[in-house]
Amino acid sequence: MTCIRFALLGSGFIGQVHAASLARHERTVLSMVADADPERAKALASRYGARAVTVAEAISSDAIDAVLIASSTPSHAALLEAAARAGKAIYCEKPIDLSLARAREVVEKVLPLGVPVTVGFNRRFDASHQQLRREIEAGVIGKIELVQMVCRASVMPPLEYLRSSGGQMRDQAIHFFDLLRFLTGDEVTTVAAMGDALALAEIAEFDDVDTSILMLRMRGGALAQLDNTRRTGHGYDERISLLGPDGVLESGSQTTRGVTLWQGERRIQPGLYPDWFSRVEGSYYAHLDAFVRSLGGEEVADLPGLLDGLRAQAIAEAAVLSLQQGQFVSVEPLA
Amino acid sequence: MTCIRFALLGSGFIGQVHAASLARHERTVLSMVADADPERAKALASRYGARAVTVAEAISSDAIDAVLIASSTPSHAALLEAAARAGKAIYCEKPIDLSLARAREVVEKVLPLGVPVTVGFNRRFDASHQQLRREIEAGVIGKIELVQMVCRASVMPPLEYLRSSGGQMRDQAIHFFDLLRFLTGDEVTTVAAMGDALALAEIAEFDDVDTSILMLRMRGGALAQLDNTRRTGHGYDERISLLGPDGVLESGSQTTRGVTLWQGERRIQPGLYPDWFSRVEGSYYAHLDAFVRSLGGEEVADLPGLLDGLRAQAIAEAAVLSLQQGQFVSVEPLA
Amino acid sequence: MTCIRFALLGSGFIGQVHAASLARHERTVLSMVADADPERAKALASRYGARAVTVAEAISSDAIDAVLIASSTPSHAALLEAAARAGKAIYCEKPIDLSLARAREVVEKVLPLGVPVTVGFNRRFDASHQQLRREIEAGVIGKIELVQMVCRASVMPPLEYLRSSGGQMRDQAIHFFDLLRFLTGDEVTTVAAMGDALALAEIAEFDDVDTSILMLRMRGGALAQLDNTRRTGHGYDERISLLGPDGVLESGSQTTRGVTLWQGERRIQPGLYPDWFSRVEGSYYAHLDAFVRSLGGEEVADLPGLLDGLRAQAIAEAAVLSLQQGQFVSVEPLA
Amino acid sequence: MTCIRFALLGSGFIGQVHAASLARHERTVLSMVADADPERAKALASRYGARAVTVAEAISSDAIDAVLIASSTPSHAALLEAAARAGKAIYCEKPIDLSLARAREVVEKVLPLGVPVTVGFNRRFDASHQQLRREIEAGVIGKIELVQMVCRASVMPPLEYLRSSGGQMRDQAIHFFDLLRFLTGDEVTTVAAMGDALALAEIAEFDDVDTSILMLRMRGGALAQLDNTRRTGHGYDERISLLGPDGVLESGSQTTRGVTLWQGERRIQPGLYPDWFSRVEGSYYAHLDAFVRSLGGEEVADLPGLLDGLRAQAIAEAAVLSLQQGQFVSVEPLA
Repeated sequence: MTCIRFALLGSGFIGQVHAASLARHERTVLSMVADADPERAKALASRYGARAVTVAEAISSDAIDAVLIASSTPSHAALLEAAARAGKAIYCEKPIDLSLARAREVVEKVLPLGVPVTVGFNRRFDASHQQLRREIEAGVIGKIELVQMVCRASVMPPLEYLRSSGGQMRDQAIHFFDLLRFLTGDEVTTVAAMGDALALAEIAEFDDVDTSILMLRMRGGALAQLDNTRRTGHGYDERISLLGPDGVLESGSQTTRGVTLWQGERRIQPGLYPDWFSRVEGSYYAHLDAFVRSLGGEEVADLPGLLDGLRAQAIAEAAVLSLQQGQFVSVEPLA
Repeated sequence: MTCIRFALLGSGFIGQVHAASLARHERTVLSMVADADPERAKALASRYGARAVTVAEAISSDAIDAVLIASSTPSHAALLEAAARAGKAIYCEKPIDLSLARAREVVEKVLPLGVPVTVGFNRRFDASHQQLRREIEAGVIGKIELVQMVCRASVMPPLEYLRSSGGQMRDQAIHFFDLLRFLTGDEVTTVAAMGDALALAEIAEFDDVDTSILMLRMRGGALAQLDNTRRTGHGYDERISLLGPDGVLESGSQTTRGVTLWQGERRIQPGLYPDWFSRVEGSYYAHLDAFVRSLGGEEVADLPGLLDGLRAQAIAEAAVLSLQQGQFVSVEPLA
Repeated sequence: MTCIRFALLGSGFIGQVHAASLARHERTVLSMVADADPERAKALASRYGARAVTVAEAISSDAIDAVLIASSTPSHAALLEAAARAGKAIYCEKPIDLSLARAREVVEKVLPLGVPVTVGFNRRFDASHQQLRREIEAGVIGKIELVQMVCRASVMPPLEYLRSSGGQMRDQAIHFFDLLRFLTGDEVTTVAAMGDALALAEIAEFDDVDTSILMLRMRGGALAQLDNTRRTGHGYDERISLLGPDGVLESGSQTTRGVTLWQGERRIQPGLYPDWFSRVEGSYYAHLDAFVRSLGGEEVADLPGLLDGLRAQAIAEAAVLSLQQGQFVSVEPLA
Repeated sequence: MTCIRFALLGSGFIGQVHAASLARHERTVLSMVADADPERAKALASRYGARAVTVAEAISSDAIDAVLIASSTPSHAALLEAAARAGKAIYCEKPIDLSLARAREVVEKVLPLGVPVTVGFNRRFDASHQQLRREIEAGVIGKIELVQMVCRASVMPPLEYLRSSGGQMRDQAIHFFDLLRFLTGDEVTTVAAMGDALALAEIAEFDDVDTSILMLRMRGGALAQLDNTRRTGHGYDERISLLGPDGVLESGSQTTRGVTLWQGERRIQPGLYPDWFSRVEGSYYAHLDAFVRSLGGEEVADLPGLLDGLRAQAIAEAAVLSLQQGQFVSVEPLA
């Protein structure tokens, strides 16, 4: 068994997470690290015995089989195209591009090249959500009729981050648009959304919201709800519940530790995971592992591809329109 | 302390529930029972040492202080008016009338008469929901930003019932329109709804749905979600969750018994209450008790009155419109 | 269907509980009430349309089919004997007598008379414990190997009560000696106990303990643990867990209401039932109902009889001895 | 900050766990690996860039600051003595030696040498148990009165393992004897135990048990219970509950994933961790980290030392005696 030699493009927070996974996985090796900041690339590379290189070197090197794109969002599209032209396998953080039009253009160029690409919807590989998927596929609750999803971040991101994030639909809710498609195996046809800047009034200036609720109608008839908040003050909460004629399947709020204090008239237990990363951390490795297995020839049904990236973005665009216009909005089908 | 002498109008299922409460409460006495079916009235009256009478006798009797209207929906409006004119205190099952216009007419006639009236939104008195209300009032989680409500009945009602029920919004969701107002202390301004006849296709003939989701915007800025289903197949599920800047308060799914089987890779526990009545039974007595205390001169803030009945119905009308037209609908304010 | 006419002997707290059950049950009628305090008997009788009588009248009356002995413990033995001689069916609160020798004498006299007798081990009829019994009988976890029982009262009883209670083994633990026999269908052969007066030092004067732990070995090989405390300060806790080769069955800590507050790093829920009565209340009616059904000719396997009362007391005696002597003690088999 | 250079003695399952921790910790480096099987040492060393050496080389090397003894139990004592004489810091897997006399001899030799030693009671560093310790120290529930501990392994170990394990008390229960001392900050004075070979009759041949219950009395008055089983068939269960006058603190059964299936009359969730290692894995790293911090000069109160090892073994010896003789046994105090 030969190892897959990876170049990591981007060595910020998420890049470092992926570096640790690539080092840990027995079938991958982290060979090169590139970053707009060469010092940062060098520091990360040295911890794992990799070489710090330029992006161009990484993509053109014969010693590289795959690239992991974890750079800033605006650079994704160009790196995707370049890596695909160089014939590399690609793990690309979401989104392909904040502009749906540009993302579509990338997909149209990259798809015909036939390189393996997965887009960073890592939550598909959360152990609990995976169990939902397996049980739904097995028909445990029958045909899905109703879906409830909750995505509540713990701490308001900095204003600068929010300003360039694309807004709550494209930045936060998009993971759940993908999970909805993934879990139901169905497509969204109509979206209606309400939202407001309840936690941080300033973001209304650039038309963003920090608290929003959505209704989504699926082609097969199922109805879905989603709520999103940017700060709970009590940890990160991610929940999915699906109802079918034969029962309900839930991936519920997860808490840390197993301690209970019974005192007076109350039972007190530890609360939610403190932040999104501690909650979903495990799914990054699981996603990488699935990608590696697929590169090794295994059939891996759950891998999110380029079209999945595009479809989730299309739902986000419809949601933005609904938020702005107070109307039900059809999701434009992708050819 | 003198007892309040009640006449019970209607001796069907819910009438019998109220009869037991009136017998059990130490400050009420069940004196008379009337029913369109005199034999049924007689049977119930005899179990509790009451007299079976006609509706007219009950309402006009000097030996009656209060009436409890638990007859069929179409008779509510006329009985309410008659009992109010006779100066009786009134506990009236919801709705006032399936027609909002007729309900408004009743309210306009009855309000000036100044008799004490409560409308049967008993779920306000559920012990768990009451705790939510108390903690929200105490400011435990701050100003409400997001509300999630779930109302899932266990077994599809008979088609004949559904045909004359007024539809899922007016018959089932209305309790949660009231709870939303009750818990937030705020009014709904906009409703958007999606729904379908997923469980029983026949009800689409009379424009009803059995599975629906709603978004509601509150005057104060909060956003609310509600889902309703007519049959879960796994018991009755009623849940409310409210998020504010300082935390989340939930009145969650309630289950029967405290038994766990750990076996193989699974932990198995008893599921939901089998039906809505076993879940909410306690709230009927608590509602009656609150009404009795208010009649005794106590200040009881939570009692739902005629205007509460009207407002919940106005939300239901907006929801029906949204379902039919696929649009956001403003809730008509009541003068 | 004719009703069973009951005389209630004793109208204190537990007598009043039984009076309400007798009134509620459709196959029983509360005909007479007797009490050492005739005024108290009269007050209770009048609430339910019964007659206040003397004990002698009640027991000798032809208009009485069954007596419910809920008087003070020292009177149980004589009333049991008298009622049995009069041919009445008998529901007798536990214990038969605080003295095991006297209790045995009563049983030897009463058993040959052949009247139906049940002893007040009402916890057998708790809905959760009943489910344990049914699943164990069905073989769900196989042959029991290990049992854990917890019996923790919420509030220290008054010193006077404790002084005449017979001590923690005979007064409190005895319910769980019975449950252990009931759930395993097996007999205790050896007991070892440790205890202390940790909560109220004064009770050491009369050799009582308020905190105790026990090990019990069953004839069939199972091992059991029990802990007892007289005051938790945080409500009443009653738990049973049984392990067999195929899993664990638990009847766990039960809490009031279904409310959760997620706040900061904590999840806060309502605690235990405030006291033993609110927790086990339902089992009194269920026990009565089972007795009534057995009187009606139905085979009711779970009813605790005179020998059950005796056997639980024999375990208590062995436990007292172990506490006092710091030794393993064999439980004397009953002929 | 310089790194602490470790030699790992023993490269079996637990040795490999420690190797990964040493590689991951930023203040340790895994420099050498020794094993009775040189090939196995070589394989492990190569994965982490360490050198495979003999035990003698490792202990005598100037390039080694600390040794981690993870070899077979019979070799612990001699390695501990040798490493202490060589002035190394020592992390030694429990037990010091299966013979309490030999263990005492080792401690008497090693203690005067003054090298830092920690004994492998890693469960002290479980995140949940640590929270118990912190809250007990903070006085949250007051002075401990009652302790319940459960230690239930999932799968029966092989007969050969059991034959040389020292028996359930010395091999399995010993972790909880240490936890009991750790959590209460108190010493055991008396032990009583019952046990049997219920799961695997063959182990009775060498006087072992696979199912046992214990009572322990603490010097300060608290009473403790422990149960141990060798196979549950439904995963690994480890629980600790402590009751004081102001409440109960529990570190409860932990389960995998956050998925619920509501179906029919049941609620089905994932069960326990499949085995002991997946449940306690995190505590190995936390223990190592605490040891490293103490070597760096930090005051680390929770580290189990040589005397802790000895005291837990003394309790185990008393428990074995109680099992064999059916008597309460005093725990011999250590000078």
